Amino acid sequence: MERHFDQDLQQLKERILYMGSLAETMIHMAIKALTERRLELTQKVYQHEEEVNKLQIEVDDRCLKMIALHQPAASDLRFLAAGMKINADLERIGDQAVNICQTTEFLLKEAPLKPLIDVPRMAEIATEMLKNALDSFVQKDENLARSVLVRDDEVDQLKEQVFRELLTFMLSDPSTIKRALDLILISRNLERIADHATNIAEDVVFVVAGKDIRHHSESAV
Amino acid sequence: MERHFDQDLQQLKERILYMGSLAETMIHMAIKALTERRLELTQKVYQHEEEVNKLQIEVDDRCLKMIALHQPAASDLRFLAAGMKINADLERIGDQAVNICQTTEFLLKEAPLKPLIDVPRMAEIATEMLKNALDSFVQKDENLARSVLVRDDEVDQLKEQVFRELLTFMLSDPSTIKRALDLILISRNLERIADHATNIAEDVVFVVAGKDIRHHSESAV
Repeated sequence: MERHFDQDLQQLKERILYMGSLAETMIHMAIKALTERRLELTQKVYQHEEEVNKLQIEVDDRCLKMIALHQPAASDLRFLAAGMKINADLERIGDQAVNICQTTEFLLKEAPLKPLIDVPRMAEIATEMLKNALDSFVQKDENLARSVLVRDDEVDQLKEQVFRELLTFMLSDPSTIKRALDLILISRNLERIADHATNIAEDVVFVVAGKDIRHHSESAV
Repeated sequence: MERHFDQDLQQLKERILYMGSLAETMIHMAIKALTERRLELTQKVYQHEEEVNKLQIEVDDRCLKMIALHQPAASDLRFLAAGMKINADLERIGDQAVNICQTTEFLLKEAPLKPLIDVPRMAEIATEMLKNALDSFVQKDENLARSVLVRDDEVDQLKEQVFRELLTFMLSDPSTIKRALDLILISRNLERIADHATNIAEDVVFVVAGKDIRHHSESAV
C-alpha cells in the first residue's frame, strides 16, 4: 500500500513537472513570436494548449483517486490538495500564453512600434518564477518557494514601466495607440503568469511548513 | 459519524455562500464607486477584501479537515475538492474588485469621460453569473450551472464593444487616452470575474454529473 502510494506520487510529480515544462515553452514561444515577428510560432502554442488541457483533467483525476484510494494523512493530503490547485494555475498560465498569441497576431499585421526590452524581460522573470515554484513543489523546498514570492514585485515594477512608456507613445503620436494598447495588454498577461507562479509558491509553503502564508506574505517573507 | 459529516457540510456551504455574497458586494461597490463617483465606497471594498482573505484560509481548512476526518466517498470527495477550487476563485474575484477600485481612484481625479453603460452592464452580468454559479454548487443543480456557462460569451461581446468604443475616443482625442485606458483595464477585470464564475460552474458540472466538461464546453452545453 505504502509503496503504491509512493509510486503514484512519483508519477504525479512527473506529470505536473511535464505540464509545467509545456507551460514554460508556451510562454517562451508566444514572446518569441512577438519579438522575432514569427507568426508560425503561435501555432505551436495553440497545439500545446490542447495538451495542457488534457493534462489538467488527468492530473485532477490522479489526485482525487490517490485521496480516495490511500486516504493519506495530513501532510500527504495537503500535498495532493496543493497539486490540484497548482494544476489549475498551470492551465491558466497556458490560457495567458494563448491570449498573448492572439494579441500578437494583430500586432504582426503592423510595423513594429519599438524594440521590445521590458516585455521579454517580464516573460523571462515570470518563467523563472514558474520553474522555481514547480521545483520547490516537487522537492518540498520551502526556501526556494519563498525566493519566488519576492520576485513578484520585480514583475509589477516592469509592468508599471511598460505602462508609462507606452502611454507616452500614445500621447505623442495617436497612430501608435492601437499597437501600444496591445503591448500593454500583453504585459498584463505576463503579470498574471507571475501571479500564478506566486500562487503556486504560496501553496508550497503551505504544504511544507503546514502554515498558510497567503495574505501575510510581507511579514512572512 | 454520518450526521457530523452532514453538519460540517452544511456549515461549509454556508461559509462559501457568505464568502460569495461578500464578493458580490465588492463588485457592486467597486462599480458604484466608479459610476456614481463616490470615492468613499472603495474603502468598503478594501475592508471586505480582508474578510474574504480570512475566509479563504478558513474554508480551505474546513475542506481539508473534512477529507481527513470523514474520508468521504467519491461524490463527497469531488464536492470538497470543488469547494477548495471555488474558494480560490472567490478570493481572486475579490482581488479583481480591489483592482477596479485602485483604477477608479485615478479615474475620479479627472472629469468623467462618458456616461458608462456597457461597463455596469458587464458587472451586472458577471455578478448574476457568480450568484447562479454558487447557488448551483450548494444545490448541486447541473442545469443552473450550465446556464452560467452560456453567458460568458455575452460578457466577451461587451468587452469587445467597450474596447472598440474607447479606442475611437482615444484616436479622436488624445486627451482621453489615460481615462479610456483605465476603463479598458476595468472591463478586463470584469471579464476575469466572469471567467472565475465560469470556472465555478464548470466545477459544479464536474461534481454533479461526475463528468469533466472543462475544455469541452462548446459541445457539452
